[in-house]
Amino acid sequence: MKFEVTILGSSSATPVYNRNPTAQLLNCNEKFYLIDCGEGTQQQLIRYGFKANKIDFIFISHLHGDHYFGLIGLLSSLHLNGRIKPMKIFAPAALAEILELQFKHSETVLRYPLEFVFTQANIPELIFENADLTVETFVLNHRIPCTGFKFVQKKRLRKLMVEKLEAEQIPIEYYPLLKRGVDLDFPDGRVLLNADYTKDSPAPRKYCYCSDTLYDERYFESIKDCDTLYHEATFLHEMLDRANQTHHTTALQAAQIAKDTRAVKLLIGHFSSRYKVLHPLLEEARSVFENTDLALEGSTFSI
Amino acid sequence: MKFEVTILGSSSATPVYNRNPTAQLLNCNEKFYLIDCGEGTQQQLIRYGFKANKIDFIFISHLHGDHYFGLIGLLSSLHLNGRIKPMKIFAPAALAEILELQFKHSETVLRYPLEFVFTQANIPELIFENADLTVETFVLNHRIPCTGFKFVQKKRLRKLMVEKLEAEQIPIEYYPLLKRGVDLDFPDGRVLLNADYTKDSPAPRKYCYCSDTLYDERYFESIKDCDTLYHEATFLHEMLDRANQTHHTTALQAAQIAKDTRAVKLLIGHFSSRYKVLHPLLEEARSVFENTDLALEGSTFSI
Repeated sequence: MKFEVTILGSSSATPVYNRNPTAQLLNCNEKFYLIDCGEGTQQQLIRYGFKANKIDFIFISHLHGDHYFGLIGLLSSLHLNGRIKPMKIFAPAALAEILELQFKHSETVLRYPLEFVFTQANIPELIFENADLTVETFVLNHRIPCTGFKFVQKKRLRKLMVEKLEAEQIPIEYYPLLKRGVDLDFPDGRVLLNADYTKDSPAPRKYCYCSDTLYDERYFESIKDCDTLYHEATFLHEMLDRANQTHHTTALQAAQIAKDTRAVKLLIGHFSSRYKVLHPLLEEARSVFENTDLALEGSTFSI
Repeated sequence: MKFEVTILGSSSATPVYNRNPTAQLLNCNEKFYLIDCGEGTQQQLIRYGFKANKIDFIFISHLHGDHYFGLIGLLSSLHLNGRIKPMKIFAPAALAEILELQFKHSETVLRYPLEFVFTQANIPELIFENADLTVETFVLNHRIPCTGFKFVQKKRLRKLMVEKLEAEQIPIEYYPLLKRGVDLDFPDGRVLLNADYTKDSPAPRKYCYCSDTLYDERYFESIKDCDTLYHEATFLHEMLDRANQTHHTTALQAAQIAKDTRAVKLLIGHFSSRYKVLHPLLEEARSVFENTDLALEGSTFSI
């Protein structure tokens, strides 16, 4: 099952050097989940060949503009392009008010429903579940209410050893039970041990998205044992005072967090406009956590 | 005196094929006037090498998103980049409410003042005047209240024939009077005829910006005798029914308007996303009005 994230924007608040503000597209089993939506996200989707109408779920971490100013344009274009299926939006409650005001003054009545789930930035919550994954929020420490998002794949059914089952002429009616790990007792006394005819499915993978935040151990429990951890790394560690003052994280801190929470891989992003080149941020992070990459526009990472 | 317009966006509502929604930057005597501000305008300014902070005046024709969704991001970035000088915004009144709501929820208190002048979409008005130009609105016919903008250079002072004045040792104290066209009577009885020592300045030029509108003769009086007329041309004339239905103009109509109002040059833009290539629109317009160009991203036109 595909589980991968494509970076649509890597810059912090002011866009520069052809870097776009934050947005990421998660593909889980060919369903598309947009995470944050900075200005220009709809253009980025076009640039990287994604159809915006395939997105059915949008997650907005907080209401600083570099994380949502592109949403109203994206939703408007979907309307103009004839979308009718619902769009589910997980976001702080005020976002609904902001969107409604703009639709009101453009006299736009969307052809499709927006279904809001309002996030709370005080306790972690399970906010979404389908056959493929669950999504939970966790509480970040930023200047305004802000949540991270944890996307966890559902455990898949066991894989059948089909050739062996066919050779032994086991009726396919039993396959669903086998996939669920059940041993089979046949009327003739034969017992078919599940472990001889199925293999365990791969361990479910976990993607954690840490938007804007001060270094704060309180959310570490929520993000532990990620396969891929995205963490903002707005500044180099020499700018720690500035990071603390603006409630952001340094590349060194992001790497330390990845190490402490036992992530397999770290992606860093949300780079300050002061950095024209980004390798110093990458090198700083790798000095603590080797398996780090820059979350650069257009890159896709398998989780 | 420089008087030129650079196109930052040429697409109608849904951005495609690397075309951006509507925005134009007018440079009049090295003062910068932004006209409409679709999503991504701040990125377009960076792309074409303009410093956003040089803009002191913003004109928003109406509150359809493809004409203003980029404004909140632009204003936020100017704040983050330390702007302190005021920004004057000419727009429908509801824009102030929309911006305020977004600043409120991001807990942003701008370091610089926004000075609003609210436009009316029922009668033409003079809305701005400085040493270089005047700006007037005119009433367009769109689905929501919408104004066009007419930028008219001020008549410059007469040009002195400095070599002749110096050769005849006319004291420079008289130069300001001469520039204003005054004949000089000297105490010794000599009379100095202004026309012998000065030349008329070039005729003031006029730029008219016709945002989204149905073909409607009522605004033609306001835009007559333009040096450069920008007119939307969302559709080919074969889509006239669709143009009427959506309150837009065809390329053929835009050209007919340029001809009827005696424009010198016509720029067409606001192209529908149905047109991957644009030369059919250009050819259609040129069949009626030869001096037509496409208002394409990155092009600068001297007015």
